[in-house]
Order: sequence, then C-alpha cells, then structure tokens
Amino acid sequence: MPRPDGPFPDFVSDLPPVPFWPRSRFGHNLARRTGTVQLMEDLGEAMTTGRGELLMMGGGNPGHIPEIQALWRQRMTELLADAPAFDAMLGDYDQPAGHPGFRAAVADLLQRTFGWPLTAKNIAVTNGGQTAFFFLFNRFAGDFDDGSHRRILLPLVPEYIGYADQAVGADLFTARRPAIELIGDHSFKYHIDFDRLALTDDIAAIAISRPTNPSSNVLTGPEIDRLSALARERGVPLLIDNAYGVPFPGVIFEDAAPVWEPHIILSLSLSKLGLPGTRTGIVVAREDIIEELSAINAITSLANNNIGQALTRPLMESGDILRISRDLIRPFYRAKADFALDCLHRSLPADLPWRVHRAEGAFFLWLWCEHLPIPTRELYQRLKARKTLIIPGESFFYGLDTADWPHSHECLRLSHTQSEDTVRRGIAILAEEIARAYGEG
Amino acid sequence: MPRPDGPFPDFVSDLPPVPFWPRSRFGHNLARRTGTVQLMEDLGEAMTTGRGELLMMGGGNPGHIPEIQALWRQRMTELLADAPAFDAMLGDYDQPAGHPGFRAAVADLLQRTFGWPLTAKNIAVTNGGQTAFFFLFNRFAGDFDDGSHRRILLPLVPEYIGYADQAVGADLFTARRPAIELIGDHSFKYHIDFDRLALTDDIAAIAISRPTNPSSNVLTGPEIDRLSALARERGVPLLIDNAYGVPFPGVIFEDAAPVWEPHIILSLSLSKLGLPGTRTGIVVAREDIIEELSAINAITSLANNNIGQALTRPLMESGDILRISRDLIRPFYRAKADFALDCLHRSLPADLPWRVHRAEGAFFLWLWCEHLPIPTRELYQRLKARKTLIIPGESFFYGLDTADWPHSHECLRLSHTQSEDTVRRGIAILAEEIARAYGEG
Repeated sequence: MPRPDGPFPDFVSDLPPVPFWPRSRFGHNLARRTGTVQLMEDLGEAMTTGRGELLMMGGGNPGHIPEIQALWRQRMTELLADAPAFDAMLGDYDQPAGHPGFRAAVADLLQRTFGWPLTAKNIAVTNGGQTAFFFLFNRFAGDFDDGSHRRILLPLVPEYIGYADQAVGADLFTARRPAIELIGDHSFKYHIDFDRLALTDDIAAIAISRPTNPSSNVLTGPEIDRLSALARERGVPLLIDNAYGVPFPGVIFEDAAPVWEPHIILSLSLSKLGLPGTRTGIVVAREDIIEELSAINAITSLANNNIGQALTRPLMESGDILRISRDLIRPFYRAKADFALDCLHRSLPADLPWRVHRAEGAFFLWLWCEHLPIPTRELYQRLKARKTLIIPGESFFYGLDTADWPHSHECLRLSHTQSEDTVRRGIAILAEEIARAYGEG
Repeated sequence: MPRPDGPFPDFVSDLPPVPFWPRSRFGHNLARRTGTVQLMEDLGEAMTTGRGELLMMGGGNPGHIPEIQALWRQRMTELLADAPAFDAMLGDYDQPAGHPGFRAAVADLLQRTFGWPLTAKNIAVTNGGQTAFFFLFNRFAGDFDDGSHRRILLPLVPEYIGYADQAVGADLFTARRPAIELIGDHSFKYHIDFDRLALTDDIAAIAISRPTNPSSNVLTGPEIDRLSALARERGVPLLIDNAYGVPFPGVIFEDAAPVWEPHIILSLSLSKLGLPGTRTGIVVAREDIIEELSAINAITSLANNNIGQALTRPLMESGDILRISRDLIRPFYRAKADFALDCLHRSLPADLPWRVHRAEGAFFLWLWCEHLPIPTRELYQRLKARKTLIIPGESFFYGLDTADWPHSHECLRLSHTQSEDTVRRGIAILAEEIARAYGEG
C-alpha cells in the first residue's frame, strides 16, 4: 500500500485488476452516458479549452453582458468590504432551505410585484434549477411503496433535454405532441393540444418550462389558465420552470404574466442573470413542499452554497433585480435573437421548406426543416466536423408513447448568445449544410 | 388567477384547499423530517438567528480562524483583480466533473505528496462531500434491476449521522458494533471488530469516515490495511470519507497516512478549510467511477459551483494548502480539542463512570456515560431547555441488525469549535445535567 515514505509500487503491474462494480438501478439510470452528459461535456470543453476553435451554438451558457459582469464585481467588492458578511458567506453552512433573509427578500419581491401571498416559508433554494426538478420529479412520480407507478405529464414536447434522464427509476415521463400553428412561409408556433392531453389517473404532476428550452415557445395566458385549472381539478401540482422568465431574469419577449397559486410549484434561477457558476435555484411552493425540499437538501447535500444568495439579496430587497432584468438583460437577448433570426433569413434559401419557431424567449432559435432527407442527428455530425456545434432535435422529444414522429427528426436548437461573428459564421455553415442535405433528397 | 394588474384574490377564502400530494418511494424516503434535517435546522437557526443566545455544541460548522478568513478574503481580492477569471467563475457553467485545471491541480498535489498514480481523470468535484456519498451509496447499493438488493457495510458504528437517511430506497446499510478499548479511568477508543464483520455476498461496498464524525476515532494503519485487503479480495470498493483528514484540511491529531488504490474511493472536502459555504467535495477514484460521477452531476445539477475551486486552485498548485493545513488548521483544532477535554475533566465528577473517546481528529468530543439512567435523547432535551445544544448519540448507531445495545443510549457528541467561553459554559451545564441524571439512577 503506497505511503509517503515510499518506495511507491508500480500500480499497473503490482496490483490485481479491479473488477467492474455492479450498478444499482439508481446507478444504472443516473450514471449512464446520456444526451445531457454529452451536451455538457461538449459545452464545458468548448468553454474551458480551445475556445475560439469551435463555433459553439449548442450550449446554454448565458452571454457575457458587460454591465452585468460589472454589477457582480461591484457586489463582491461590497461583500469584501463587509468582512463579517463575506466571512459568513464562505465560512458558515447555510440552512437547508436557504438563507432566511434571502428567502424573505424573494417572497417580498414576488408579493409586492404580483400580489402572491408568500412568505419566506414558501421559498426554498436549491443547487440550481436542474436540481430542483431532479428532486421534484422523483418526489412526485416513479415507484410508490404501494406498488403503483406514477408519471409526470409533459403536455408539450419538445421540452428541456435536461429533464429527460432525471428518473432514479424507470418511465418517469409521459409526453404529448403539440399542435403546430404555421405562421407565414418560414415561421411557426407550438400550442398545447388539449384534445390529446389524456390526463389519466397515473399522472402525478404536470410540468412545463416557460419560456421553453429548446423552442423558445411561451405558453399563452389562456393555455396556462386552462392547464392550471386542469391540474387543480385533478388534485395534482403544476410545475413551471421559469428559468428564463419574469420577473427575473426576464429573457422573455412576450407580454406574459407569471402565475402562482398553492397548487403551482414555480422555479426561478439566478443562472440567466449571469450567475450559472453559483448554482442557485429558487422554488416557490406551498409550505409543506418547501419543508420537503428543505429535508431533501439536508439529506443530499446538508445545505446549498451561499454565494448567489449573498450577491443578489440586496437587489431582491430593493427591486433593482426587476429593473436590471427589464432594462439590461431582456434587450440584450432580444437583440441577440433578432440578429440570429436575421442571419437565418439571409442565409437559408427562401425556397426551402424551413421554419423557425417564433422567438419568444430563452437563449435559442428552434429550426424546423420539414422533409429534411437526413435526421438532424446526422446534420449535427456534419456540422461538428466543420467545428460548428448545434443540438440535434431528437433528444428533446422524449416521453412520447406514439410511434416515430417525423417532426422529431427535423428540428434543431441553436443558441444565439455568442458573439455576432460566431452566430453569423455558424449560421452560414448551417445554411450550407442544410441546403446540401435537402439536395440529397 | 392573480396578475400584476390586480385586484388580487384573497387566497385563503377564494381558492379550494389543495390536497396532500402522494409521495413516491424516493419522496417518502428523502422528504421525511429526519435526524439530519432537525440537526441542520437547529444548527442553521442558531447560526443565522439569535446567535449568542444558545450554547451551540451540536453543529459541525468549522471554527472561524482569522488567518484563514484573511486568506480567503485575499484570494477573492486577487480574483476580482483578474476580471476574466472572476467573470468566468460566476458566469460560466463548469464541466460536470469539475474544472479541468482544478482537477489536475488536486491530482498533481496527491501524486507528488503520496505517490498515487493520479491524473485529472481520477478527480471529480461534487456539491460537497455529503452529495458525493449520496451519489456513491445509491450507485453501489439498493435495488438492482435483476431483483437483488445490496447494502453498504459500515464496519464500525457510531458513524456519521448524515449518511443515515441517504437511501433513495430501503435498507441501505448494514453496520457492526466496534470493539471498545478502555483507556485509564475516563478514556476509550473504538476498533473494528474483524470477527464480527460477516462480509456477506450482499455487501456492495465498505464505507468509513476517517477521522470519524462523531467519535473522532482514527482507524489505525493496520486496521485500514486489513479492511482494504478484504475489500480488494471481495471485489468491492472501500469508500473513505476523508472530510477532516490529510493532506487537507488536516484536522487529524494522529500520525495516520491516507491511502488510495484503484479499489478505494476517497473523498475530500473544502468545508473544513473554512469554505462550507462554497459546497465543494472532491472524489478520488478510478476513471470509470469519476466518469459516472460526472454523469450523475450532469443529470442532477448540470455542474457544480465554481467558487471553492477558483479560490483554492493556486494553493493546490503551490502546495500551500498542505502548509496551511499543518501549520494553521491542525494546531487550531488540536488546541480546541485539548481545551474541551480539559473542561470535561475539570467539570465531570471523577467518581462517575464517564469516558471520552480519544480525541484523534474532527471537530467533536464523544462522551460515553456508562450506565446513565436516562437515554441521551432525554439528556439532549434537558440541555436544550437550558439553551445548550449537543447531539444525542442514538442517531449515530444505525444499520445494526442486533437487538438494542445499551451503549447506543449512553453517548453524546459535542463540538469543540466554538469560543472557549461557549465550550466552558456549555460543558459546565452538561456536567451538571449528567451528575443530576446519574443521581436519578
């Protein structure tokens, strides 16, 4: 056995080989190499090594907004000037549900902005929004001690790729195709097809993201109202992932009001405020659900990190977070989306049957190449060979019971948050490859 | 439905009550109010509200070491001066396994310190050590797709309370009583009772913490060697929680060498370096296990926060982290432990049959009151009524198949990391209550 006093054995030759260690169901489900893992590896690799070599339009990293970066530097400088606050941020374990002052600040902000009857007891902090949904999906659905099995209804796919692999057991989602509204020659919008919903008794919860990653779709007010009424009637929660929405970070280009009621579980995030490195998710829910999340946080990780909360708390208290979202963040991404849309329209031949989803929010354009002769997985490989990264659409269509749906092989997601140069060059290459693929049909 | 334009409904009267939402097995197991949850709530509440009112000797928060606090302030100041590095820390998603530069720095440090043949591919970052064990325990043990069920062997309890509730299914642990070495009139030390181990085929892994929370026990070199050989022979991994150990943070008072081999999974943490607020755990393991942890990180949380890694990376690269651990952190906690031991010996009547475990590391003293007429749960309540917080010992004896063991009701954990005034006053009250309880026998 190696010890500091050496000599050190040659591990390769001296020790017997170690066998594969069998994986539990949990291990099998969560430790596989899935689409999310590969996406994050591609993204992370491009961000930390070889930046500039790739035209990265596959990831969801927020853009670097100089005013926002300056704001967080200033906030950290303020914290450093307040040594007790700074020392507590790094040196003290947080409470499992989050810092009481931060939770109260968020509750107050939402209360005075929207009139929702919230207190700190309705707010929990998680290690990012992704973790909130990992906990919530598996808390509501999966295997039950009475032998039953329940599932999460996704009323509209394509839906966020990051949910797809989050089941600790099997068969967590049941999803529905959308209705497609064609708009002009080259645009479209998804709607919930309420006739297809089939809200069966094994549905444990309904879940949506709004704006939706990947399509940038924002469910309309009437759609949300109808979904909310259905959930309430059936006695199941409606989970709304508001990672991009209002009141912060405000990456939403429609005049859509957020909703919360006791049967709604709403998640917010600091990531799209330029703080993904802090991993800070915020859940708004009934007190009993918040207590449960607090317990899950305690058991799985003791507490969350304090940094995102400490950086943003004064902005929650003052309401400046709303102004920043409205005046800095929304216009930045709106301009990014418009620029990318313009590139698409300029680059893609007008006589080909492509359509782009209405850009209603989030960081992405969602391109539909109807009757494309190759699946977008193949298109992805061709683009990657040309150092242009997008995400093929197939991975966003999960949980569908029905047979193969051609639409699911005809879409792709491209992020518009990079520099104009990257977006322009990337879309030019994309357009070439799409035209080439159509030419093979 | 409430909207920003109001009027807002009175939620209490206008909306129907929301039913209890049934919990899946995952939800049932992780969302209950358990000992860990209550511990963290007590601790967090004492840390964030009403500090000074309680004599808090129940928690595991690291002490506030001025030199260490100054170091982290200085490191953050340095990061702020390097705007691109600071902006990347907050504004970019990390890779799921952690920052490549940080992973390489840790691997290099361990390689040159101990000769272990490691590269960055043997290192994964998690959202704290607690999260690492949540993933690892459930990855190795629990329900398998073939219908079998496997468990984690804890070869010696009392063991860390934070593991006890981490099962997503049922029946995750099987534990063994230790052998007890009596030392003088008022001291003792636990040893693994190898005759009791019963390493049956359903054992998926062996797990220990070293130093152990709560007892401060450090398994001896020969004990570790024997355990490691057993694990290797049986083809199962040995999981070692090194949250307090060497080479950092160095809260270990014995001359114990750490070990790593391909069948060992070792976890380290930045928490006891004064950075619990950053939630940074480090796992050292075979490449395939690191890849699995990377996948689990990606699925459950996309990535970890960057802050702890960014703050400590230069110290890993320079090796200063070893000097700090040896010259600042170890002496600080050694003095704390000695002071608390001295208080115990001065305060507790010498003619009562109490014993304190040898103080070999970590943040705690472990007191054994043999033949105490009341369980320590009751003692805990009496102390709490006097605003003195300790942790009763019962919760640390989990996973035992055998019938009730009196020893498990006779122990308590008290942390020694607070101010001398708190420790002195807390132990004085503790001594009064123990003497009173013995008087009731």
